[in-house]
Amino acid sequence: MRTELSTRLGIEYALFGFTPFPAVAAALCRAGGFGVLGAVRYRDAGELARDLDWLDRNTGGAPYGLDVVMPARRAPGTEGLGEDDVEAVIPASHRRYVDEILAAHDVPALPGGQRAGWRVTGWLEDVARAQLDVAFDHPVALLANALGPPPADVVTRAHAHGMLVAALAGSARHARRHAEAGVDVVVAQGYEAGGHTGEIATMVLTPEVVRAVDPLPVLAAGGIGSGEQIAAGLALGAQGVWLGSLWLTTEEAALSSPALTAKLLAAGSGDTVRSRALTGKPARQLRTAWTDAWDDPAGPGPLPMPLQGLLVAEALTRIQHHEVLPLLGTPVGQIVGRMDAVRPVRAVVDELTRDFERAVARLGRIAGGTT
Amino acid sequence: MRTELSTRLGIEYALFGFTPFPAVAAALCRAGGFGVLGAVRYRDAGELARDLDWLDRNTGGAPYGLDVVMPARRAPGTEGLGEDDVEAVIPASHRRYVDEILAAHDVPALPGGQRAGWRVTGWLEDVARAQLDVAFDHPVALLANALGPPPADVVTRAHAHGMLVAALAGSARHARRHAEAGVDVVVAQGYEAGGHTGEIATMVLTPEVVRAVDPLPVLAAGGIGSGEQIAAGLALGAQGVWLGSLWLTTEEAALSSPALTAKLLAAGSGDTVRSRALTGKPARQLRTAWTDAWDDPAGPGPLPMPLQGLLVAEALTRIQHHEVLPLLGTPVGQIVGRMDAVRPVRAVVDELTRDFERAVARLGRIAGGTT
Repeated sequence: MRTELSTRLGIEYALFGFTPFPAVAAALCRAGGFGVLGAVRYRDAGELARDLDWLDRNTGGAPYGLDVVMPARRAPGTEGLGEDDVEAVIPASHRRYVDEILAAHDVPALPGGQRAGWRVTGWLEDVARAQLDVAFDHPVALLANALGPPPADVVTRAHAHGMLVAALAGSARHARRHAEAGVDVVVAQGYEAGGHTGEIATMVLTPEVVRAVDPLPVLAAGGIGSGEQIAAGLALGAQGVWLGSLWLTTEEAALSSPALTAKLLAAGSGDTVRSRALTGKPARQLRTAWTDAWDDPAGPGPLPMPLQGLLVAEALTRIQHHEVLPLLGTPVGQIVGRMDAVRPVRAVVDELTRDFERAVARLGRIAGGTT
Repeated sequence: MRTELSTRLGIEYALFGFTPFPAVAAALCRAGGFGVLGAVRYRDAGELARDLDWLDRNTGGAPYGLDVVMPARRAPGTEGLGEDDVEAVIPASHRRYVDEILAAHDVPALPGGQRAGWRVTGWLEDVARAQLDVAFDHPVALLANALGPPPADVVTRAHAHGMLVAALAGSARHARRHAEAGVDVVVAQGYEAGGHTGEIATMVLTPEVVRAVDPLPVLAAGGIGSGEQIAAGLALGAQGVWLGSLWLTTEEAALSSPALTAKLLAAGSGDTVRSRALTGKPARQLRTAWTDAWDDPAGPGPLPMPLQGLLVAEALTRIQHHEVLPLLGTPVGQIVGRMDAVRPVRAVVDELTRDFERAVARLGRIAGGTT
């Protein structure tokens, strides 16, 4: 599974894995793929620095990537504000609605003194920039930006450090904007993907983006969790595939609770929803009583990014801490339907590459007319 | 592009084309594919018989298929009713809403004496059964059913006539129900497809359905309009691909107006919407002022099938007759974005098969690691 891009990066497989867990990223790198660590869950830059130091020692010398989130546009009225100022913009009625959801499901408070752990503070540009300073102190081979084109100075700085810059796109128009911003790699993120996603499915989006940014390399993302799906993504003209959901149920993943892993293993492809409940922008995730409450036309509806993420941070931490099943969710794509066992990353990669070879061989027989 | 299924049908390419136009079906058959005529637009069985007679003389001896629509479930309160009785169930407030939409866009009445032409009466089982009687008088090689599993007696009768029976499925659960009903071929219709569709994208749905009904052959549908997309669909384990939208802008298609063709040529992949505006069930179509009106939370919303189809039949005929641009639409999938020229079916097939071979060759190089 070798393309111009994988050759350029010096990796065995054109198989890119996005993960919030350093152990998954490292294992993927050691297995011949390319691990991309998601930085959005990091509260402070020091913690990120420690994890990148660890990655540097644990990829077996293989290169890795880092994904930061810098939304291109801020919600009206929040431009230039810091985290505390933004908190003050959140309407009291929305805070009451959060309390009502939690009360309806008897969600206890956090243990004394404990604060909300995971906050989606990465949506705030100042947080993202502190993370970038850490990134530039490490041998990051690819710097990805999940929302909007990265700022020009970031692209310049990344290139000066010899890093490739990647950006996620949900439409050909977004992809062209990325190309104009100097991005080196575009990740075409289809409708079926976990996390932030548009409405164009991977089957249609990938070749559109390939044509829109030619000759830049494109990675196909969304709906890819098997060797056949990798073959399909590459058949669409991509120079690699970008998988996120599949790693959530690997042994190396550190989900908030075994209950969440169990929910992922049990879920079918129809059990996700594209909802603004988590961040304020449409993101695919497990459908739960939480997403239902925010998608309910009778409710107040989600706030725009970054307000929603700040509004719900503590509530989500409480839900996770107490494993409140009906509300417990996570971003995940439609391929959750085939995540049905907990396995080591290496075993997953072995199966992906073997089934990829098999799918390509079958396709060759179909094309040759020898079936 | 040969699979077990294409060999069984005796066709050159495992390329299935759904179309409401006999000339498109015939041209596709002559070009080595398999044309499937959609029967839903036929008002009476005699007209369908005439078109099948014509097809028999114009496929160059190649086999063809017929697609009828027999919804498995009827709207509550309409079971066992004929067309006129069902009309009486439609609320007056919905009829007023139709009049308001037409008035807002100054849509004139039909010329004196002219009745609504295209009525979606095929949604009614008695109409579908009259069409089936015609089908069984013709050498139809494959009988497809677009909604729900076909009734047991239809499957038995089709098999007695040597016909294969196909059914469309938007989920693995639907596909299993089809297999239990004795269907021979399942068409996995992804979210991005034109017409009635579910929420699971082709990339995820196809392999799920392949596994669910193994060893039955599966056709991949939705998002397929290029040779690369055909390669992707087949890589997912399908034994063929099912294309519908792409033929709408062929020379052989007989759309209601040049204005509609122009709209299709201009539309991008983001210009469709999955809406109940047309039939009462979610169907992907061009987004128009018509779909906006029915998807408007302030409006009454669409009625269930078959009421919505009957409610809107005359209005749609008026819109088409007078080419009222903002309201003018048609079922079409997200691949509308790449329909940018009117060409003969043969030229489209030539390009599809050439680009398919090219995509497979590229994939072979990626798998062989020689890129």
